[in-house]
Amino acid sequence: MNKPMPGQALDDLETPVLLLDLDRFESNVQHMAAYCRDNGKEWRPHSKAHKSPAIAHIELANGACGITCAKLSEAEWMVAHGVPSILLANQIVSPVKFAALARLQHRAEVIAAVDNIAVVEPMAAAAIDEGVRIPVVVEIDIGMKRVGVEPGPPLLALSKAISDQPGLAFKGLMGYEGHVLDCWPLQAKKKACYQALDILVESRNLLENNGLQIEIVSAGGTGSYELSALHDGVTELQAGGGVFMDVMYRRKCHVEALTPALTVLTSVTSRAADRVVVDAGFKTLSSSHQPPEVLGRDDLRLRGLSAEHGVFNIVEGQAGPALGEQIELLVGYSDSTTFLHNYFVAVRKGRVEKIWDISARGLLR
Amino acid sequence: MNKPMPGQALDDLETPVLLLDLDRFESNVQHMAAYCRDNGKEWRPHSKAHKSPAIAHIELANGACGITCAKLSEAEWMVAHGVPSILLANQIVSPVKFAALARLQHRAEVIAAVDNIAVVEPMAAAAIDEGVRIPVVVEIDIGMKRVGVEPGPPLLALSKAISDQPGLAFKGLMGYEGHVLDCWPLQAKKKACYQALDILVESRNLLENNGLQIEIVSAGGTGSYELSALHDGVTELQAGGGVFMDVMYRRKCHVEALTPALTVLTSVTSRAADRVVVDAGFKTLSSSHQPPEVLGRDDLRLRGLSAEHGVFNIVEGQAGPALGEQIELLVGYSDSTTFLHNYFVAVRKGRVEKIWDISARGLLR
Repeated sequence: MNKPMPGQALDDLETPVLLLDLDRFESNVQHMAAYCRDNGKEWRPHSKAHKSPAIAHIELANGACGITCAKLSEAEWMVAHGVPSILLANQIVSPVKFAALARLQHRAEVIAAVDNIAVVEPMAAAAIDEGVRIPVVVEIDIGMKRVGVEPGPPLLALSKAISDQPGLAFKGLMGYEGHVLDCWPLQAKKKACYQALDILVESRNLLENNGLQIEIVSAGGTGSYELSALHDGVTELQAGGGVFMDVMYRRKCHVEALTPALTVLTSVTSRAADRVVVDAGFKTLSSSHQPPEVLGRDDLRLRGLSAEHGVFNIVEGQAGPALGEQIELLVGYSDSTTFLHNYFVAVRKGRVEKIWDISARGLLR
Repeated sequence: MNKPMPGQALDDLETPVLLLDLDRFESNVQHMAAYCRDNGKEWRPHSKAHKSPAIAHIELANGACGITCAKLSEAEWMVAHGVPSILLANQIVSPVKFAALARLQHRAEVIAAVDNIAVVEPMAAAAIDEGVRIPVVVEIDIGMKRVGVEPGPPLLALSKAISDQPGLAFKGLMGYEGHVLDCWPLQAKKKACYQALDILVESRNLLENNGLQIEIVSAGGTGSYELSALHDGVTELQAGGGVFMDVMYRRKCHVEALTPALTVLTSVTSRAADRVVVDAGFKTLSSSHQPPEVLGRDDLRLRGLSAEHGVFNIVEGQAGPALGEQIELLVGYSDSTTFLHNYFVAVRKGRVEKIWDISARGLLR
């Protein structure tokens, strides 16, 4: 099965295939960039949602100050593809990775997130061995109880230790308000979000009062970017998934300003009187965080996804689609779907315009 | 981050990485092959669990009669890597795919599974255009209500239509008893399994009584292979995941004769008083069908996986692992985990022996 070709119409594509509608995607990129800019924030979109250097460069061209990466190997790949500034928003702890991170500094700014004082000395030693300084932010737990140092004295001790190391450059703070994304109604979400971000701002004050300079205060996923961008003290947002938008952001996070741009084009490969099966299962399309939705038709209800089969019941009284008919599915959660694919098929007005490799998929280390 | 190297000890590996214990894996392959052989069945293991030509060839060398594939593009890849016989245990419906399937017949036997009379004519036409005959089995719904023609008259009509086409070679039947895998206790599972497989045998009788010859009757996943292999009339089993074994087969399907061989090696990248975070989230390790289990220690309880973070609570009163410590996780469900990785790191007695690329990952069409 060959790759899709520019110029092809959707009808002519062999399925399943991951489609990105360019008009909608570009509108989302512009919206995210403008919303951050208009509110005085930098935009450093997380690339774990796309794992594609081509998309990273589009974000940069639209005003992103850099990108965020989840893994060191992803950052290496993005640096190899010319991305000049990266926040590695995850902890690394091994000497081999410290050395690799130090080497990257010759070619780009790759900022490490640290939440444990034990890594400060070996990370600094790797930097000195390599003749570089590694820029570092401290990751603070702002309420999600996942990673991050505790605010207050532990934060201060860690920040001072980083600042004291000649191999490291203390840059500031990051936190992730992931626990507030599905709070609702809006007033409750706003309260929870600002409680979390207030911890960042108080932390900033604590460090500045102790003589540390803060350049970066990073936060913000797509599920809360509209609120987080309004919060004083935050300097940049990581929100990355908004360029695709998806069902979860709409239904669980109540994001309204963005347009769903990411779909999976499937075909009906089996049908019975009461159901159809399409050629996309959980290896093509995740339903674990939010199920996909059928685009443009209301006669199908998702029964479930097995590895390579997507099963939909036909709504009673409806005819349902025919064998071979294409069904377009709105991606439930982009972050758990894009990385299943080798490439995005970028389409405009129903025709293939470009193929963008998802070439950082599988870079897990 | 470079690939692991043969000769490396586990301690020296950068994590996360997918490990396959060779002693256990080989023992599972030999067990599956022998169990089928001893019960007079062929073994045609499903390759969707490994997506690796290297592993397909090990299965063939141990007596598998061929492999099963989930997608045409997987079958193309396996044929390109020298696999001589494949059952494509899934429906294809497009003319482009019929033509590709026909072309494959010059290089290997690739058997199509058909469940709808509408595809018979165009599939046969593609075969005639290519100057080949496409071997075909009819897929029957034996109770799972997913794909498959209804037994009885619809099956007979479809089988006759295939048999009447000079471009097609009618080979027999397949069914999948996927709905019985987690039945328990054993007597209930046995009853449900044999009810399903009886439909296959009755279908065989129906067709033979109508003058059709049946060479293949294919069934059997790993979750029921011990029962299905004992059932008269079935000629071959598709059970593929058993070579890895995993937590789901043990806990939900009560498979006892195989040994867990597939793990993900992780490291603690963040720790607090009550929890640790490892560097494997849902992009590295699935928990959607069955959560992973911590190997060789009982102080950790899975809290959940986000994209790149695996969060474990430390059992009260226990110290928990240190920052940087390696944690080996038994894969919850191999079929939803292997395809997240670029390669298996095959280890024996704690040392890397080989790297096997999971090169068919992402072949979804």
